[in-house]
Amino acid sequence: MPGPDFDVLVLGAGSGGYACALRAAQLGLTVALVEKDKVGGTCLHEGCIPTKALLHAAEVADSARDAGQFGVRATLEGIDVPAVNAYRDGVVSRLHKGLTGLVKSRGITTVAGTGRLTGPHEVTVDGTAYTGRHVVLASGSRPRVLPDLEVDGVRVLTSEDALRLEHVPTSVVVLGGGVIGCEFASVWRSFGAEVTIVEALPRLVAGEEAASSAALQRAFRKRGITVRTSTPFQSLKETDDGVAVTVEGGDVIEAELVLVAVGRAPVTEDLGYEEHGVTLDRGFVVTDERCRTGVEGLWAVGDIVPGLQLAHRGFAQGLFVAEEIAGLDPAPVDELAVPRVTYSHPEVASVGLTEQQAVERHGADGVETLTYDLGGNGKSQILKTQGFVKLVRRTDGPVVGVHLVGERVGELIGEAQLIYGWEAHAEDVAPLVHAHPTQNEALGEAHLALAGKPLHAHG
Amino acid sequence: MPGPDFDVLVLGAGSGGYACALRAAQLGLTVALVEKDKVGGTCLHEGCIPTKALLHAAEVADSARDAGQFGVRATLEGIDVPAVNAYRDGVVSRLHKGLTGLVKSRGITTVAGTGRLTGPHEVTVDGTAYTGRHVVLASGSRPRVLPDLEVDGVRVLTSEDALRLEHVPTSVVVLGGGVIGCEFASVWRSFGAEVTIVEALPRLVAGEEAASSAALQRAFRKRGITVRTSTPFQSLKETDDGVAVTVEGGDVIEAELVLVAVGRAPVTEDLGYEEHGVTLDRGFVVTDERCRTGVEGLWAVGDIVPGLQLAHRGFAQGLFVAEEIAGLDPAPVDELAVPRVTYSHPEVASVGLTEQQAVERHGADGVETLTYDLGGNGKSQILKTQGFVKLVRRTDGPVVGVHLVGERVGELIGEAQLIYGWEAHAEDVAPLVHAHPTQNEALGEAHLALAGKPLHAHG
Repeated sequence: MPGPDFDVLVLGAGSGGYACALRAAQLGLTVALVEKDKVGGTCLHEGCIPTKALLHAAEVADSARDAGQFGVRATLEGIDVPAVNAYRDGVVSRLHKGLTGLVKSRGITTVAGTGRLTGPHEVTVDGTAYTGRHVVLASGSRPRVLPDLEVDGVRVLTSEDALRLEHVPTSVVVLGGGVIGCEFASVWRSFGAEVTIVEALPRLVAGEEAASSAALQRAFRKRGITVRTSTPFQSLKETDDGVAVTVEGGDVIEAELVLVAVGRAPVTEDLGYEEHGVTLDRGFVVTDERCRTGVEGLWAVGDIVPGLQLAHRGFAQGLFVAEEIAGLDPAPVDELAVPRVTYSHPEVASVGLTEQQAVERHGADGVETLTYDLGGNGKSQILKTQGFVKLVRRTDGPVVGVHLVGERVGELIGEAQLIYGWEAHAEDVAPLVHAHPTQNEALGEAHLALAGKPLHAHG
Repeated sequence: MPGPDFDVLVLGAGSGGYACALRAAQLGLTVALVEKDKVGGTCLHEGCIPTKALLHAAEVADSARDAGQFGVRATLEGIDVPAVNAYRDGVVSRLHKGLTGLVKSRGITTVAGTGRLTGPHEVTVDGTAYTGRHVVLASGSRPRVLPDLEVDGVRVLTSEDALRLEHVPTSVVVLGGGVIGCEFASVWRSFGAEVTIVEALPRLVAGEEAASSAALQRAFRKRGITVRTSTPFQSLKETDDGVAVTVEGGDVIEAELVLVAVGRAPVTEDLGYEEHGVTLDRGFVVTDERCRTGVEGLWAVGDIVPGLQLAHRGFAQGLFVAEEIAGLDPAPVDELAVPRVTYSHPEVASVGLTEQQAVERHGADGVETLTYDLGGNGKSQILKTQGFVKLVRRTDGPVVGVHLVGERVGELIGEAQLIYGWEAHAEDVAPLVHAHPTQNEALGEAHLALAGKPLHAHG
């Protein structure tokens, strides 16, 4: 009897799937990658990359609008949405070309078509069965919709529909104040739309530090975005020229469009997962911390695994599984070490525990925090941004959480995740010299202050 | 006989001086700070902060000019230089207010006036002598000028004159392609001037990695800045409407203005330093690595000490001396761990050794390098910036140099200096998850590749 066709057969070529395939191939394994759409998945084609391109166009628009504050005489005349989309598609297509070239150069077999698990070690695509010594499920996610709300792609949009929009709406209601909702709200506001965010929870980006949510909410309000938290959606009615959204309590908000941004659902139904022994929980694939489904040789990575639905978590899990299969015994991905960035204006970024989470684990006496205001940071003053660095540490112990709000602070999370990942104490960071004037200097100052030696801070 | 007036008497309230004063006061020492001008020194009033404000206004101008590339319809109408200056002065004055408040709140005595060392433990200001158990020399630097070239502040400017300019010059010759020259060249080009950089050395920012110089030079040429390296200045003649600069070989370059940006000279003459036992070398104060001048209780920090003339090096030395005086036995400042950033468009940033320096120390076989092109970095593609991350490590050893070129990469140096400072191996960085899509992800990818597990890179 012949062996399996491939060492590793990956179902889904999004971030988790392709990272696994690339690493497995590099480790000398034979690999096939099954994808019904394009290599790169949601992140490249309908998520991270295109939305961040929109957010950069939004930054360019804001910069032109506010140019006078910096002494630059410029006029913002409008947004040419087809041109924005062309710029965005250009970025996506260049990265897609690079990625497909990379997949090819590593000798990975790509199979185009919808794959279905037809055995614990078998995926069938258009009637052809492929077998793998190991099978990695990486079928990703899609926008979640609300049970009583029909998405028509015209008046009621998912984030994918929103990316296809060819004009700036006059007004939008964004249902959901999570990362995706806040990012689209930010873009549309920068582009000149009237924006209302409707969120059932008491705050925006509710997974973040409470202080970060509060700061984002203040900044959004200052930008003229209406933020309605603790406001569950009730119903929607089409009107002559748009939609009327009724929220709990009876208020009606009229707008041209509604964006439904209530999270992303795992794509796991009708793929044969349960038939072959995979346990699903509300649609998510249940795994242990080593990405094992419980069926020998059957793994799962990325958005189908409960936890943060982030491309870089998918990358990390994909790399992990490839190395695990190759016998390298890698360390599992620490979910808390995965940095989170909301790329709105201003940005919110974090790694590790929030203050509340830290207190739940270690008790109020076991946790200390320090907040450094960007008002004392020269570069942030130059950018005219407000915000803060908040550090959470175990009392006299390592830094266990870093929280940032402000324009461009998403880039500081690179340093922050090293501090978290290496379990550094404030005293380890304090003696290292940060460049002046940078925003990352605020991280340095915060650690100096936490180590009891504040420089540009009262204390 | 009474004791000295203060535990620590600091001569000069620039970065090095005020950092020392703040830390010493925090450690319970009595401190006086002597300053002839304003607390904050060159960095705050005529260096880092005002130039970076200009560079940000330049970025705003570039962004408006290039808005169409991102689908944003905007017109750049011009630069209102007095308004740019007002914005810049606003930033400086807010930070100055914060700093003076901080100095006051720590109980530091400030003495306004020109101080002179009148004894190894005595500084005299306007006829009044102040004594310190320790005296810290921090008299800073001023723009260097050329012997045969008279700076008139009208046609021939130093960087300080350039900050006072109330219009955008039509054309400028920048003498000197170091950090300051490149930053002003970048600003003026963004503001619409014709700019020629004349540099005697074979490359721009000659202290940086050769690849960084080459990339900056290419980027500047693409922006229409004329770069003439290996071109020593010969003479200057005023013309009816500007200046004519003759360079070696006889070429004449005409322009409205000349900026002399040939470095900064230490301010150490006529201050009584040599009379009281301080050794000067070409004007710089000779110290050991613990900032000791050789005279008991007499220290020197900042730009008067040979080495990198950077505000954050001054901060670090100032903190060091305060802690040393307080008996905390701090580790001396590692000059190589001091990050360097040129805030031009694009930016150049680095920490640690260049490849050439590493090879000189460890031999060609003892050094490995890896270059990751920002073409593979999604966020850099979104920003439409080119550049790279170049890592230098000891063969199978720690990373000893990180070099970056590209828009906004100055912020990545925060993470890079941790990697350098903690003597990390690529294998220590590789497993840590970088956020996607960020520019700092390029640092992650570079370390993955150097550790032999490239993700989005061929290898």
